[in-house]
This record gives sequence, structure tokens and C-alpha cells, in this order.
Amino acid sequence: MPQHSPHELPEGDPFGADALPYGVFTTPGAPDHPRIGVRYGAYVLDAATATAERGSAYADLLDQPVLNPLMAAGRPVWQAVRAEIRGMLDDGTLPGGHAHPLDEVTLHLPFEVADYVDFYASEHHATNAGRIFRPNGQALPPNWKHLPIGYHGRAGTVVVSGTDVVRPQGQRKAPDEELPSFGPSRRLDIEAEVGFVVGTPAPARTPVPLDAFRDHVFGVCLVNDWSARDIQSWEYVPLGPFLGKSFATSVSAWITPLEAFDAARVAPPARDFPLLPYLDDSSAPEPGGIDIRLEVRINGEVVSRPPFSAMYWTAAQQLAHMTVNGASLRTGDFYASGTVSGPESDQLGCLLEITAGKGPFLADGDEVVITAWAPGRGGARIGLGEVAGRVLPAGGR
Amino acid sequence: MPQHSPHELPEGDPFGADALPYGVFTTPGAPDHPRIGVRYGAYVLDAATATAERGSAYADLLDQPVLNPLMAAGRPVWQAVRAEIRGMLDDGTLPGGHAHPLDEVTLHLPFEVADYVDFYASEHHATNAGRIFRPNGQALPPNWKHLPIGYHGRAGTVVVSGTDVVRPQGQRKAPDEELPSFGPSRRLDIEAEVGFVVGTPAPARTPVPLDAFRDHVFGVCLVNDWSARDIQSWEYVPLGPFLGKSFATSVSAWITPLEAFDAARVAPPARDFPLLPYLDDSSAPEPGGIDIRLEVRINGEVVSRPPFSAMYWTAAQQLAHMTVNGASLRTGDFYASGTVSGPESDQLGCLLEITAGKGPFLADGDEVVITAWAPGRGGARIGLGEVAGRVLPAGGR
Repeated sequence: MPQHSPHELPEGDPFGADALPYGVFTTPGAPDHPRIGVRYGAYVLDAATATAERGSAYADLLDQPVLNPLMAAGRPVWQAVRAEIRGMLDDGTLPGGHAHPLDEVTLHLPFEVADYVDFYASEHHATNAGRIFRPNGQALPPNWKHLPIGYHGRAGTVVVSGTDVVRPQGQRKAPDEELPSFGPSRRLDIEAEVGFVVGTPAPARTPVPLDAFRDHVFGVCLVNDWSARDIQSWEYVPLGPFLGKSFATSVSAWITPLEAFDAARVAPPARDFPLLPYLDDSSAPEPGGIDIRLEVRINGEVVSRPPFSAMYWTAAQQLAHMTVNGASLRTGDFYASGTVSGPESDQLGCLLEITAGKGPFLADGDEVVITAWAPGRGGARIGLGEVAGRVLPAGGR
Repeated sequence: MPQHSPHELPEGDPFGADALPYGVFTTPGAPDHPRIGVRYGAYVLDAATATAERGSAYADLLDQPVLNPLMAAGRPVWQAVRAEIRGMLDDGTLPGGHAHPLDEVTLHLPFEVADYVDFYASEHHATNAGRIFRPNGQALPPNWKHLPIGYHGRAGTVVVSGTDVVRPQGQRKAPDEELPSFGPSRRLDIEAEVGFVVGTPAPARTPVPLDAFRDHVFGVCLVNDWSARDIQSWEYVPLGPFLGKSFATSVSAWITPLEAFDAARVAPPARDFPLLPYLDDSSAPEPGGIDIRLEVRINGEVVSRPPFSAMYWTAAQQLAHMTVNGASLRTGDFYASGTVSGPESDQLGCLLEITAGKGPFLADGDEVVITAWAPGRGGARIGLGEVAGRVLPAGGR
């Protein structure tokens, strides 16, 4: 238990009144009543009961087992609910009777995932991975700087932070082996990513332009896109990753409203090619990058500090690309940035890159924790919820 | 209107008592009450009211706007419901008061799609497509005969037969062009496929062995996996198809129970490599192939008759592969076979193959209809519902 009372936010805590991420929690006393909470410091504000007590029009939207109804309500409602929650914290304290210490609640997968798409937006990662996967080919494929490459992942195996991840089994073939063999992955890896959750849907045939990004994206989370490199490298030509990824994708329990990152907007890297109009953000009114600073720890040791600001493709560009062919968006659609890697050797977002393809990769029992923060107003930090997971041996249930 | 009464099934009609596919329909008189129907000849039996009248224990499962609750109920229930429906038809007639002529109802997407996976299981298609997409490489990748290659598609854009398909726009780059351009696809294609719908879920870390296929797969449908070849060929390296496919995937309105194909089981082609145990069906008690005979018509003209019996990988192998890494299955998971192509020039399942990559591809206004049947008991035919769609010009809403 923290030493301070719910009525004080510790100095420098990144979960202050400018962060206020949403999650879904239960208490030991009501394990069958999942509902929406808002993180404040080391506490969870029960948003359902706190708003109901005040007779808020949004109390029903918050007394829900997933964020989807709130996300579907649209940006004006998101803004109104956030203002109402902030109003409760005006004196810097949590409203009495509605706060639970974080370590006394259970956090659940905060939204029902519709479609899950994973991008590949870091030039550093794509170049490094390309060299390792295709040593005799071009590291960066010719399309890479013209469009944000992405693919659909498995929505049904997205799990919340804290869920153990069992080492997957499957077909593996090392380059020097003649035939594939079956067994536990020998090259289990992480991918530190940032995820974006769609709230407002878009019907078919209505591409989402760059400047409508804020109307559709509800919030931001952290992602660990677990990857079995040996399964992936054997299976992925020509239709892309499948079983090397589909066993589990972990997301943080907290979804931080997009608005919380207003002070962290930064220009993306200079573009090497002029972009087609639907992707051209060179004259956008606000910069498309976000200065989110990730930290990856394995068994408590920091192995990397990947900078999200270095991503070549922005989340707005990814959304515009994903819908430009007329594909609809649903509430709960979820897309991840791809591995976040920066230019420096201590900024790489996966072990494939960190170890130059040689390993070691994850061992059974390893615990991976990814955390992040972004600059807020007046020197404050905006925290993102961590995404954590432990590797269990293959074959276990 | 058909000339015969609901009390007679025309001679040779493939939708007799051994087919009985399920769908979801509304009538003009009750457009807000979608419910489950069973096709019999040119009629829809209102399964909800017909079972309710008899006091069936399953009436509630059938008075639903999607098949998912019935699919989730498991194989013993599927068998019991089918037996009950067949019992109503014992004298070869439909129960009075519960039959609607097919052309007087509206058919809806029959199930809520969880995850959608598309495979690549025809050796003929994979070889032909490989030659066209990778003229300087190996046509069939080295992994192809060791595992059923597949990838996740977009579940949110699966549409029911009859839905118009708007020509997608996107980035296209012909091999002789230096830079990509933006515009409507110039190479819009079809892919004639057979789809399998999962009923009984499987928790994470419980791979579905070959012999549990029947316990999990509820039924079979036809699929048109619309494909924009120019968008696809520019985007698909290295992470697979994305926008070239994600604008629309059409499925038939009717899901035929797996059991209806018992008389159509055939051995798959001889395998060129021994398969790893989880895929080895050489000593399976029942053959894994299904003799479904497809027919593809464009604007009324037959362009191909692809044989599903020629598929190298079976649906049971695909399910075993999809779950061998520990990925869970959900009710509504849906997987398609990949383009069905046979060895002959009149058995190719897409225009890419039919025209050897040269086109012509689909023109605006073209109507594509895929139908199929399989051998049933005593020389009868088991019909599958058609999957039809018309191409609308790009940019329309």
C-alpha cells in the first residue's frame, strides 16, 4: 500500500489529472461486476459509482464491463466525460468512497477487440529486421517509404497486461536445417509497440482523412506483440506472419485518451519521398508524431528505451491508409505501430534487433515489462499503463 | 414465384432434406425481426416459429438474429436441431404456415464473424499465382508442402452475398512504373473459395487435433475473396496482403452443416512430403477432402468450374494448424480455403490465373456468381448457397 492517502498525488507521479487513463476493474467484494475505472496515482477511481452519485448523464456509459459503449459515443462525449472526471479532482484529491488502491483491484481487458492490425512503422526496425530476415535481399522493401505496411493479426488472442504467455509450439526450420521440425519456439521475442484504439466507427467507403484522426481514435495503449521468430521466418513467405504472432498479443490495462498527448506532439522524421495526398501530412495543422518514451525491462533490467517519436509513419497516416480502400472501421478496431526502434543501439524494441538475430531470446520464466511516458503540460509526465507478461514453458495450460 | 407448392420439392433440387443450410432472414412484414431460417427448395422454413409451435427446446436458439448462439451450443445440439428440422419434412413437404418463398425474404449476414483467416491451399493456384507474382523466383515457396499457409483477413468487411462491391482505390504500381500512383484498382479480381465456420470454441493452449474437426466446425459456405491485384502486388512484401483484400469479402447467405457432406468425403491429393504428426492425415478414419464442385459465372457466363476435391490441404488440417501454437478459437471464427483451382485450364478460381495475369479483370457493373454442389446420398445433390456480388465504380457510396 502506498504511504500517502487518496487525497494526495505524490510529487512527479505520471498518473495525474492530465493523464487519467481508462480501464476496467473488479474488486474482491464484487468480482462479477466489472466496470470502468480511471487511474489517478496509485488509485483507481470508480468512474461508475462516482458519476452516478453526482447524477451524471454518463453514469450508465461508465457502468460497463468494457470501454466499447463509451468509445462508440464519440468525441464530444469523450471530452465531456473527461471534463467531468477532472472536475472531481479539482482540489487534487479523489472523491471519497470511490477510490480503490490499485493493488487491491483486478484489471481486465479494457475493450472488446474488433479487428486488430499491426503496422511496421519504424524505419530503424524495418531495416534491422529486413537485414536479419532477408540477408541476401533489400533490407527495406521498395514500398516501405510510400505506404505504411501493415497486416491483420488475431483479435481473439489479444490479452491484458499481466496474463502469462505460454511459449508457442509450431513448425521451425533453421536456415541450415533441411526439413522443419515441430516443437517449442526457440526464438521467442517481444515487440514493444504503441497501440491505438478506435472509438467512432466509419461506414464502408468513407476513408478517414488525416485530419479526422482525433474524431475516430479514442485512446492509446502499450503493446507487446510477442513473436516466435523461428516459426515466423519459416511461415511468413508469401502471405505474412501468422502463427509466429497469433498465440498472444498483450495490451496495457489502461487506455489513455488521445487528448492527453496534446503537449507531446512532435514532427515525424523528414520524409525521403513526397507522399501521395491521402498520406501527405507536410502541411497538417498539428504534428503527427507523439513523443512517447518507452522502456523495456526483462526480469527487472532495462534492455532498451525505444523512442516513439522516431517512427516514420504516424498513427493518423496508418488510419488513413487502413481505410483508403473503402474498408469500414468498427468501434474496438485496434492497431499497433509495429516495433518501436530508434537509431541508437539502446533504443531497439525487440530482441531480434538487440541481439542482431543471434539471441539469446526469451527464456521460460522471463518477465517482460514495458512502460512509457510522454511530456505533459508544465514539465509534468503523462504515464501510460504498463504492459507486463511472464513466459511459461510450452505445453502448459 | 416457383410453380410448385411448398409441399413439393422439384425433382433434382439440390436443397432437399439432406442439405438444409441455415441462414438469417427477414420478411417484408417484420423487417426488424431477423431470425434463423432453413432453406428447402425455393423456400425458407421459419425455423424459429416452426420449432416454437412444436414446443421445441431449441426454439429460442433459433429465434436469433445470427447463428452464433446455435453455433456455440455444440455438436450434440446441432445434431438434435437438424434431426428436428428433418422430422418436420418427413413427408417431403414443408410445415404449413412457416414457409416463405425465397424471393420474398431478405437474407442477412448469417453469423457474426470473430476472426477471419484466409488460407492458400490449392497447389494449382499457389503455383500459378506464384509464377505471376514472382516471375523470377520459385513459384511454390519452400514451406508450402509442409504447412497450410494462411493469414488473417479483415473480419469487419465480411459481407453477405448480394452486397454490391465498390471498386477499391489505393496505391498501385505496375512493374514498369517508377512510382506508385493513387486511384481505382485496375486489376480487380475474384477468388472462388470454400469457407468453414467455427461453432464450438477452444480455449487458449488446447490445439484442435485433426479428429476433433467435426466437434468445432459448424458448417460450410461459399466465399468470394475479392482481390485488387495491383494494390496487392505493390503492398504485400513482406507482411502479406492487406488493402488489396480488406475492402470486402463476400460469403453466401447459407451455412450448410458439415454433416451434409458425409457422402462427399474424398481423399486429398497424395502428399509429396511426409507431414508432421499434427498434420498427418494419412491414417485418418475418414478422408479429409470434400468433393464440392464450384461454378463461377461472370455476367451469366460460366468462366470456371473449380474442384474443391483438388485442394492439397484439408479444412481439418487448416484448423489443426491454426491452433497448434496455442491460439484460442471463438464461436464465429471463420476460415476460407484460399482460391480453389484445379489442374485444368477451365478449373481456375480467379481471373489472375484464367488470364495468366494479363487480364481483362473485372469491369464496373460486372456481376459475379459462384455456386456449388456436392454429391449426396443416392445420387442426390447437396447445394451450397450462392455467393453473388456486383462491381460498382470506385468512389461511390
